[in-house]
Formats: sequence, C-alpha cells, structure tokens
Amino acid sequence: MLDKLDLTKKTDDTKYEAVLEEYKDRLSVLQRTLREKKIPTIIVIEGWNASGITMTVHEIVHALDPRGYTLHSIDRPSEEERAHPFLWRFWLRIPPKGRIAIFARSWYTRVIAEETHKPSWEKSLKSRSHQINTFERQLADDGTVIMKFFLHITKEEQKSRLEWREGNPLTACQVTPSIWNLHHHYDDALPIFDDFIAKTDTPYAPWTLVEATDRRYAILKVYATIIKTLEKKCEAAEEGKTRKPKPLVMVKPKKNPVRRHAPPDKVFTREGLQETLSQLQVEMLELHYLLFKRKIPLIIVYEGWDAAGKGGNITRVTRFMNPLGYYVVPVAAPTEPEKEYHYLRRFTQHFPSGGDIAIFDRSWYGRVLVERVEKITPEPDWQRAYQEINEMEEEFVYSSRGGIIKFWLEISKDEQLKRFNQRSEDPMKKYKITEDDWRNREKWELYDVAVDDMLARTSTDIAPWTVVESDDKWFARVKALRTIIAAAHRLL
Amino acid sequence: MLDKLDLTKKTDDTKYEAVLEEYKDRLSVLQRTLREKKIPTIIVIEGWNASGITMTVHEIVHALDPRGYTLHSIDRPSEEERAHPFLWRFWLRIPPKGRIAIFARSWYTRVIAEETHKPSWEKSLKSRSHQINTFERQLADDGTVIMKFFLHITKEEQKSRLEWREGNPLTACQVTPSIWNLHHHYDDALPIFDDFIAKTDTPYAPWTLVEATDRRYAILKVYATIIKTLEKKCEAAEEGKTRKPKPLVMVKPKKNPVRRHAPPDKVFTREGLQETLSQLQVEMLELHYLLFKRKIPLIIVYEGWDAAGKGGNITRVTRFMNPLGYYVVPVAAPTEPEKEYHYLRRFTQHFPSGGDIAIFDRSWYGRVLVERVEKITPEPDWQRAYQEINEMEEEFVYSSRGGIIKFWLEISKDEQLKRFNQRSEDPMKKYKITEDDWRNREKWELYDVAVDDMLARTSTDIAPWTVVESDDKWFARVKALRTIIAAAHRLL
Repeated sequence: MLDKLDLTKKTDDTKYEAVLEEYKDRLSVLQRTLREKKIPTIIVIEGWNASGITMTVHEIVHALDPRGYTLHSIDRPSEEERAHPFLWRFWLRIPPKGRIAIFARSWYTRVIAEETHKPSWEKSLKSRSHQINTFERQLADDGTVIMKFFLHITKEEQKSRLEWREGNPLTACQVTPSIWNLHHHYDDALPIFDDFIAKTDTPYAPWTLVEATDRRYAILKVYATIIKTLEKKCEAAEEGKTRKPKPLVMVKPKKNPVRRHAPPDKVFTREGLQETLSQLQVEMLELHYLLFKRKIPLIIVYEGWDAAGKGGNITRVTRFMNPLGYYVVPVAAPTEPEKEYHYLRRFTQHFPSGGDIAIFDRSWYGRVLVERVEKITPEPDWQRAYQEINEMEEEFVYSSRGGIIKFWLEISKDEQLKRFNQRSEDPMKKYKITEDDWRNREKWELYDVAVDDMLARTSTDIAPWTVVESDDKWFARVKALRTIIAAAHRLL
Repeated sequence: MLDKLDLTKKTDDTKYEAVLEEYKDRLSVLQRTLREKKIPTIIVIEGWNASGITMTVHEIVHALDPRGYTLHSIDRPSEEERAHPFLWRFWLRIPPKGRIAIFARSWYTRVIAEETHKPSWEKSLKSRSHQINTFERQLADDGTVIMKFFLHITKEEQKSRLEWREGNPLTACQVTPSIWNLHHHYDDALPIFDDFIAKTDTPYAPWTLVEATDRRYAILKVYATIIKTLEKKCEAAEEGKTRKPKPLVMVKPKKNPVRRHAPPDKVFTREGLQETLSQLQVEMLELHYLLFKRKIPLIIVYEGWDAAGKGGNITRVTRFMNPLGYYVVPVAAPTEPEKEYHYLRRFTQHFPSGGDIAIFDRSWYGRVLVERVEKITPEPDWQRAYQEINEMEEEFVYSSRGGIIKFWLEISKDEQLKRFNQRSEDPMKKYKITEDDWRNREKWELYDVAVDDMLARTSTDIAPWTVVESDDKWFARVKALRTIIAAAHRLL
C-alpha cells in the first residue's frame, strides 16, 4: 500500500495558514461535541523516524482544550510494564468518555521494535496483529472512535532530514547511531510495515496513509481526516444513530455443561478436612515460592452466591502464602471515574505481573451476573461480554504465560438462608449481611440462569471454571486449594 | 535507644496462639470501626535484614479484611519514581479514608539505602528526616494514624539467621552477597539507625522499638501496640474528640505585599506586543529544549479571576513548546475517590519529572480560594494550608532542583463584566460562561481578601507569585512568557 502513495503531493503555501486556522476552529468545536456526547476518541500517529510525528501532534494539540485530551508519547516500556502483557500499558491509557487520547507512536511501533529482531518474528507479528485487532475492536464496540495515521517518506527524504537534524544543535542529539541503523534497514522495514498495516486496517479502526514529504500537506491531510471522521460520528450521535457493534456470534455453550452441586459428593469429617488443609497449605507455601522464582503470574477468581464463604476461603487458601507475593483485589460496584472507561480496564489494571498471585474477590464476571440480572447493562453489551472476557483471559494467558483459575462457590438456597440468619444473630458477623443480600436472594432464579450461562460460555480450555461445593466450608477450602495446587504444578 | 533494648525478652509459648487469636479478633473489629469513622491508618514495619519483617506483616494482614488494607512492599524505586522527588512515590501510596496502608519497609530504609553511601550523607540524612517529619505531620494533621515499628536483633542473631536461610532451599536465594555486605557493616549502621529513629520519633508518628530475637514476642508486641493505639483513636473519635492538629503558627504575611494591578503600567500597541510575543516564543523553544536536556522540571501555576484569560495565556506560552515535553493539568473540583485522600495528593501526583514542564490550570491554591470562600473546607484546615503548601513547594524545589512559577492573572471587575457579556453573546464562546461564573462574581470582595492573603502568605523566595496584569490580554501573554524565560535562565 505504501508504495502506491504519491509522495510528491504538496499544499499550496499561500492558503495553508488560512485552511489550518479553519480546521483548528472546527476541531475545537468538535472536541466540545465529543465531550457532550461522551464519545471517547483515540488518534494514533505513526510513521518513519523524521517523518514529522512530533510536529503533527503539535499542530493537533494546539487546537484542543487541555481539559479534554491527553497526549501519550510512547517509548520503551518501564520495568513494571515489561512485567505485564504487551497491551497492559495501553489499556491503562485508553481515553475516558468524552476525551481524546493522542498517541505519538503506539502499540504499532512497539510491536516492530520489540518483535522484529526475534527469530520467529513473522509469527509474533501475526499474533500481535490479532491481539491488536481484538483490542481495537473491543474499544470500538464500546463507542470509541479510533483513527490511525502513518506518515510516509522515502529513504532519501529520511536521510536528508536526519542529516539536517545532525547539523542543527537543537536536534543533533536526537540522531543517535541506532536511528541511523534503522535508516539503513529502511528497505527491510518497508514490507514489514506494509504488511502490518494491511493486517490491522479494519472498519472499526482504519489506517490513513499520509504522504509526508511536504509537511504542510501531511498536517492538512491528518486534520481533514480527523474532522471528517468526527463530524460523521457526531452527526450520527446527534441523530441517535450510535454505531451498533457488529453482533458477535454468541459464544456457544459447551456441550458438556459445568454441573453445579452444593453439597460434596461424599461426607467428610471436619477433622479430616482440617488436617488435609494444613498439609495443602504447607505444599502451597513451596509452590508459591517456585511460581515467584520463575516469574509466573497467576489469577484466581472467586465468584459465588452471597454467603457462600468467599472471604473465609481466600483467608485459608492464602494462610501460608508470602504476603509480599499475592494480593486480594476486592471488587465492588465501579466508582464514577471508573465508569468513564471500558468496563474491563478496572480489572486488567490489577492483573498480576510475573511472580505475583492476584486473587479477585468478585470480578469482571459481574458484567454477566449482577449487571445482567439487575439490568445495569443493556442486553447487547452483556451478551457481547462473554466473548470479550474470553478474549481478555486468553490474551493474559498467552502473553504472560500465566494461569487463570476460576471458582464458582455453590451453596444451596437453604444453606444460604441458614447462614443469613446466623449472621443476623451474631453481633460479630452482623455487619456482613445487608438489605442487598436479601434482595439478591429474591432473585435467586434469575441469577441461576445467569450463572449457568456464564459457566457454559466462559469455561474455556485455558481458563476453565471449577465449581466448589460449599455447603461444607471445610470441604470447599480443601477443594479450592487442591485446585490451585494442581494448576500451579501444571504451570511450573 | 536501640542499645537499651533487652533483646532476651520472650513470650510464653503455651499462651502465644491464644493471645494471637484474641488480638486478631480485636484488630478485625477495629478495622471495621476505622472504616466507619473514615480514619486512614499507616503502619510502617522496619528493621534489620532477617529481623522478621515479612513474618510480622504476614500475621497482621491475616487478621484484616482485604477490602480495607493495602500492603506496600517497598524496594528500589522504578525509573519513573527515581525521576521524581524522594517522597513522591510515598504520597501516591498514602491510604484513603477508612483504609490501612501497611509498609513492609518504607521511606526509612530507602533513605538509608539511597543516601548513606554519599559523601555528604550526614547532611542528607538530616534534611531527609526533616522532610519525612513534615510529610508525616501533614498526614497526621489530616487525621491519619501513623505507627512505626523497628524490629531489632543483634549482629550475632542476624548472622545465625542468615546462615540458616542460606542452608534452606526455599530461602537461600534471598541471602545475596549484598545482604552479607550489609551484615558486615552492622556496627556502622547501628548508630545511623539510632540517630535517624531519634530524629523522626514524633508525637504524631511515634516509633515503637521491638525486641525481635523471639519472633513471637515481636509479633505480640507489634499487635498490642497497634491495638492500643487504634482503640484509643477509635474511642476518641466516638466521643467526637478527633485530634486537633497543633495550631500552626499562621504563616505571616510578607512585609512588602504583592500588589495587584489589572491594567499594565504603560500602554502598548497590540502589534508591538504580538511581535514581542513571537520573538519570545522562539526563545522559549530553545530554553525548553535545554531544560529538557538537563532534566530540570518546571511547574507553572495559573490562578486568576474567571475570564482573566488563563486558557489563552497557556496556549500562547506553549505555542512553540514541544508537546512531548510539557503537559497541562486542568484542575476541577475533586472527584469522590480523590476526596478520600489528603488534598495535596491529587496535585503531587501530577508533578513533573526531570525535563518536563507541568502547567496547572488552577491548582492546590483552590484550598485557600474557592474552598475558603465557599466554606467547602473548615477554617482550621485552610488556615493550615498556607504552611502545607509552602512546605510542598519547598520540597519539590529542593528535592528535584526544579522551579515553580506562579501566576495570578488580575483583571478589573469592569473588564470581567465586559468579557462575561461578550462570551454570552458569542455562540462560539457561550459554552465558556456558566451560572457559577456569575455567582462567583457576586462574591468578588470575599475572593479579593482571599487572594490578598494567599499572595501575602505563599509568595516565598523559592516560589514567588507574579501578578500578571491581564486587562490587556496581549500584555499578559508577553509578561507571563517573559517571566517563564527569566526563571528558566536562572534554573539553567
């Protein structure tokens, strides 16, 4: 695609300033409309070294109200970012509703920089473009406008710009040996960029290739594209025609559904279970250490009925774990600022880096449980969530070579009532029971359906659900810890 | 102090488990009371290597509901943290209201690790202890309970524990050559710790020295101290006797008050001013580059009357700045989650690292302006803010060798009315004017007093206010940029 561009395109100098001023005014108005309509926007500026990325960004941000945009200049990842999956740092930088995130370089440059020196780079690039498309599609489905620009110049043009910069004291230090090295590999890089752009040019996040020999032409083209895209989007929003995400093929339930039981299959003595638990806790201590040593991250998800014993289970499971190597993420309703973002962000944010165990006390499955039952989230959105969740979990497991263990703590309706009553009567435990719990209980049947759907649609090979029969708390603790130990063995 | 401890103290083994269980129950209840009373708590666990910090933390967190605490294991700072002032990373980790932050090692170990190898370490240590005391006092004044523990063992005990660890496959890798090196310098470190502890043992953040030869004794002593402290605090809160921060000596106004004028002293032509501005913008481009090269951070604060022209001034000042080297922080009312923290945290969070310019469009001075006038903050709190702000700015300037420029944009009441009316009539600018603006205008006289107080009490040598006469917008832009340029020259 790049080789078909006419790089001699120019802008009439005399008109440039006037057109630019008009564009700036229009963008400025559009920014306010985006804010009112709560539309998040991503603008990615990519291109060759010395193609004018900084200058282009400069011209765009100067039209914008600083209250409404954030500029992300993307360079090498920090140590913490490196310890997380590739897209983690970009999830953290997605724009909230009504705001614009501008990326001066982005995940695209990072893939090229981090992957193409590897022997199996072609495979990596393919898998990265798949991940990126998923990432961008999820954001677009949530209403984000995504525009991507690639500023193109020839090798000769790049050479002359680098030489000019070398001769200028204000820019000389930018031209490092590695920049020259990249220049010498221009011809190798060209087909790679071309292919990568082709693979990630999607209806929901299209590329615009920009002939950047003439800087003014490039800036005006970028501006015109942004304005056209946003005007269309704002008009559609005005008419209530928000983009309907392409209905996903609903994730099919598994043929062999995960069966739920509240009581264990056999009856155990409390003493026997407690002894087993103590032994397993010691075994876990050692395994935790090995996971830590080998920098393998682990996610443990706890979902279950109210009063199923999530808290107590977590306490017992972590009894001998080194507190510096695990953390519990208690999940409640999202805060107002959290609601401004794609719903998955507040979870991925807490995903563990290599060697850590993150235990989620409730999780992203709230989307298809409470948010579905209480009608907090419209049906098309929670319907879409099954696939989004599967994709997110897959991305975590593949990118970080970690594990995900998901527990559904099942108790019978009678057992729940017993526990609710016990809690209400015990002054030390009374705080644990609220009006909400009683209200949720009334909707038991609705939750039942939602749980079945969730287990059927999100129990994947890489992140299967384990139903923990929790009418007997001690049995539940033993089963959970045993499951974690087995998973840890597989990961090591 | 450390040498007066009786390190042979022991706990009766037979009672240990029972006492620990009782303590855990009490702490668990206290945690809920802290949450109800919205009291933030900091627990710092420090001590020698192998003194049992991790084990102690382990026993504490197991009594706690994960929803209410965060454990911070403090090690070397990240690259980003290193580029900020020393306390920056700890400001980010302070607990919100009602929550407990536990620090396994803290700013104390970091000072020793980062400072004592420097030739002038004694001076550094003194200045760090001053900074730390200020930090802890500010948090305590805001209602935070701070408890600090130092686990003490002898050199011989340390040696035998390190040898034991070396012999155990699960712990061998912890005992690195640098740990042995520290062990060999135990006798040099002892008086340094002793002195540092003495210097930072304050009524608002007292140290508890813990005889840690017997691990159980140590754990029970830490527990008992935490419980006693929190019980006292909770009782006091129950009786409405919240800690009254020691009334600070009110920051005295300067003898030569900063005088405010709305019109410039002389009359300039618009053409002349615009030409000067263009020249200054080019000069700024170069200075920005030098600040960036030399990694000098700069904070520019914009305060002023509504419609004084802050936004336009910022746009002109940054006209030729590289957008990758500056950012604008628009300050609005705090969000609900932000309100859970000490009010300075949401600002320090955005402080620039070396080489960046952070422009605050409104700032922490809201505390002594809008929050005072609108009675959002009780009088003792905003009274205290003058000193807190001066301390924060001083800490930034000294720690990061950066600069702070503060602009008050002054316009006359008549000029404001003119601009309000213009805005109301211009469809492109109408969005800029709200009911709030008119309401604020009615309180002009109250704001007038607050502004005078602010200028008088926070115009320090290291961070003086500059009044920018803004009835003439172009004059104001020239004056602001000229001030920034002069400050940059001084910093270079």
